[in-house]
Amino acid sequence: MPVSLYASPPGVLFPRGSPQEWGQAARQPPGLLPAQCRAFSNNKILVELDTSSGVATMKFKSPPVNSLSLDFLTEFCISLEKLENDRACRGLIITSAVPRVFSSGLDINEMCGKSREHYAEFWRAVQEMWIRLYSSNMVTVAAINGSSPAGGCLIALTCDYRIMVENPKYIIGLNEAQLGIVAPFWFKDTFVKAVGHRVAERSLQLGLLHSVPEAHRIGLVDEVVPEEKLQEKAAAVVAQWLALPDHARQLTKSMMRKAVLDHMLAHREEDIQNFVNFISKDSIQKSLSMYMEMLKKKKS
Amino acid sequence: MPVSLYASPPGVLFPRGSPQEWGQAARQPPGLLPAQCRAFSNNKILVELDTSSGVATMKFKSPPVNSLSLDFLTEFCISLEKLENDRACRGLIITSAVPRVFSSGLDINEMCGKSREHYAEFWRAVQEMWIRLYSSNMVTVAAINGSSPAGGCLIALTCDYRIMVENPKYIIGLNEAQLGIVAPFWFKDTFVKAVGHRVAERSLQLGLLHSVPEAHRIGLVDEVVPEEKLQEKAAAVVAQWLALPDHARQLTKSMMRKAVLDHMLAHREEDIQNFVNFISKDSIQKSLSMYMEMLKKKKS
Amino acid sequence: MPVSLYASPPGVLFPRGSPQEWGQAARQPPGLLPAQCRAFSNNKILVELDTSSGVATMKFKSPPVNSLSLDFLTEFCISLEKLENDRACRGLIITSAVPRVFSSGLDINEMCGKSREHYAEFWRAVQEMWIRLYSSNMVTVAAINGSSPAGGCLIALTCDYRIMVENPKYIIGLNEAQLGIVAPFWFKDTFVKAVGHRVAERSLQLGLLHSVPEAHRIGLVDEVVPEEKLQEKAAAVVAQWLALPDHARQLTKSMMRKAVLDHMLAHREEDIQNFVNFISKDSIQKSLSMYMEMLKKKKS
Repeated sequence: MPVSLYASPPGVLFPRGSPQEWGQAARQPPGLLPAQCRAFSNNKILVELDTSSGVATMKFKSPPVNSLSLDFLTEFCISLEKLENDRACRGLIITSAVPRVFSSGLDINEMCGKSREHYAEFWRAVQEMWIRLYSSNMVTVAAINGSSPAGGCLIALTCDYRIMVENPKYIIGLNEAQLGIVAPFWFKDTFVKAVGHRVAERSLQLGLLHSVPEAHRIGLVDEVVPEEKLQEKAAAVVAQWLALPDHARQLTKSMMRKAVLDHMLAHREEDIQNFVNFISKDSIQKSLSMYMEMLKKKKS
Repeated sequence: MPVSLYASPPGVLFPRGSPQEWGQAARQPPGLLPAQCRAFSNNKILVELDTSSGVATMKFKSPPVNSLSLDFLTEFCISLEKLENDRACRGLIITSAVPRVFSSGLDINEMCGKSREHYAEFWRAVQEMWIRLYSSNMVTVAAINGSSPAGGCLIALTCDYRIMVENPKYIIGLNEAQLGIVAPFWFKDTFVKAVGHRVAERSLQLGLLHSVPEAHRIGLVDEVVPEEKLQEKAAAVVAQWLALPDHARQLTKSMMRKAVLDHMLAHREEDIQNFVNFISKDSIQKSLSMYMEMLKKKKS
Repeated sequence: MPVSLYASPPGVLFPRGSPQEWGQAARQPPGLLPAQCRAFSNNKILVELDTSSGVATMKFKSPPVNSLSLDFLTEFCISLEKLENDRACRGLIITSAVPRVFSSGLDINEMCGKSREHYAEFWRAVQEMWIRLYSSNMVTVAAINGSSPAGGCLIALTCDYRIMVENPKYIIGLNEAQLGIVAPFWFKDTFVKAVGHRVAERSLQLGLLHSVPEAHRIGLVDEVVPEEKLQEKAAAVVAQWLALPDHARQLTKSMMRKAVLDHMLAHREEDIQNFVNFISKDSIQKSLSMYMEMLKKKKS
């Protein structure tokens, strides 16, 4: 199937559903002058929109490690939908307010000792997060100011551009195999599009967590900067991308991402069933429990 | 679908139609000894065939910037068909006779203030140019001796090999997004096959025009040489490729390019309709007019 | 079609048929303690399994150049099946016992002056070798201690990891075009997955045989070591891969390789017919005969 480049109305990259449980988007009434800066915050994510530049910053503030729990993902999707529907917002920087970690990835608590219904609900939220971010009309930049394994790495990969802080302690990668689980096909597709098939095959099989210079070398991140330059750099990159006419940039983004998105959407329910069946297995539950025990011991 | 490697008769990469309006190909009568060098020229392209080496050179000579007008494209396709059907010709070097520019890409005059029928005819000619060059049985080398944005970059990408002159003023890339338009899917596919998905995604969204060293680094051109070495180098590269048995080289080329070609051919009419609908929009017409005004002011 | 990640039972990457003519696999009876080291050898391949590490080494010993004859391929598949079904074996190193050559590729004798039935049988064995190795549950490392053109290169590409000895005389690549033949689509797919489309297009059309540093630079081999370090390095790499949980690593491998495998399996019979038709042509038989004459003269 071809990419219907010219047919799509400008500004609509992707038909966005708006599940009722996520509430109504805060569309700015057209007649009101927006304040210079707007902010909204729930429990786990702080969002600030600079209406003069049209750039929002989303800060993960869910200590200790910004785990992607069901609550976190729901809040993420609501925030994203609000910004997407706000005409004053054209760009988004995603970063962390927690020291040394961008996001540690999916919350293992959501995958351990729960019901099949819960696993299904959780997995649908993980998918929804990816679908909305991958197809966002906004320019999206990941300002990665800490370690970013597994689902944390996925969020970064799903943005348009990745800037990481140079720090010998930070790591990034899809390390699912290390935990005895397997990255789903759309994690894999997103990864392959960034680093190519060969690098992805080895990295995923070994569950590698790459150092910052290595991540840069293989193309997993686009740019590396000192911590104090991160905000400035991220703002400059968003400004560069926003200099393009919105509709041309958005249609181009849609064209580049259509195959991977369509493939995922066509198999979304099947993917949920596969996840639920896999994660419910005794052997998988057992290895996840052991992993969590290990984490707890490490902490204490 | 598999590539029917072994089944294809050697020397036939692609079923070439020969539209009557493009006239008859000048096939050399088998009994006549060819002259050492043959040349033919129309208004916009000069073609010289060295029958001793079997290599033709096509020189774009349509000042000021070798725009790809409907006339230019028609002449290009006729010339290509003549060479393709000439048994004395096995290789082709494409270069420019206009200083500092290889080709500036599609002629915006053909896309502005014309009828839907005209847009359709023009787009079909753009497609035809790509189809014939991408599936050519000849070894094709782009000797890029000047800037090469948009459609100019596409011609280079469609060849088997790209050599560019090192000059800090020359640029190359698919910059459509800068003009508020979108590269069609087969421009994108050709680009992705050369530089990979990640580099293409960023470059197309930003409509980047790359410097020569950068184009070399990302694989958009294969080799960089000083101006005075270009002809010699291009001849050496064609000779290297012609050292292979024709049918094996041609079948291999066909195998490598089949998926992208088939995808385009299956959606050719749809692509024309999409282009006509898109380019006919008031908003697009307006931004193209503004762009042309800007170019005119620049000149004067 | 999606990759049914979660649904596959751990440890089963691929439904392995076991053609009767290849005999019964030597599954270790569960109650017996295996000896520290087991070896079996037929005429052309020596296999040693170190049961303490779970790593087998397969040494090609078919002088002068480890040609992939029908007998060699049959023995290769039997050995592979034995190891695959041996629970004591989790990793495989493939190397050569013949000086200066890893494998020279398909035996041209099997493709020259034989019956159509023979060509079909031979080609099915080539396919079987690739299918089994590409979908192996074991960690597979090619320890390339000599030149490795054509089918020899394919064996290396089909492993999980490639280490090559640094030696200015060694070369590696898919040079089929040099012989006037064409690499089949699944050789091409395996190659493209390692080095990317652009590098593959040029390398296959020119039938390039790359030096070791060049092969390393384009990603055709993963690592280069001095001859005396090869065994040690291969063992270290296998150990690194075996540190991962088997089922997660195997499911990840399956996910990465599924598209290429499925495509080949869907067109396997067609590919055999294409090969038989192609290789039976007078022109191809003639050029293969000439090539063999040339080889014979070179030797004497």
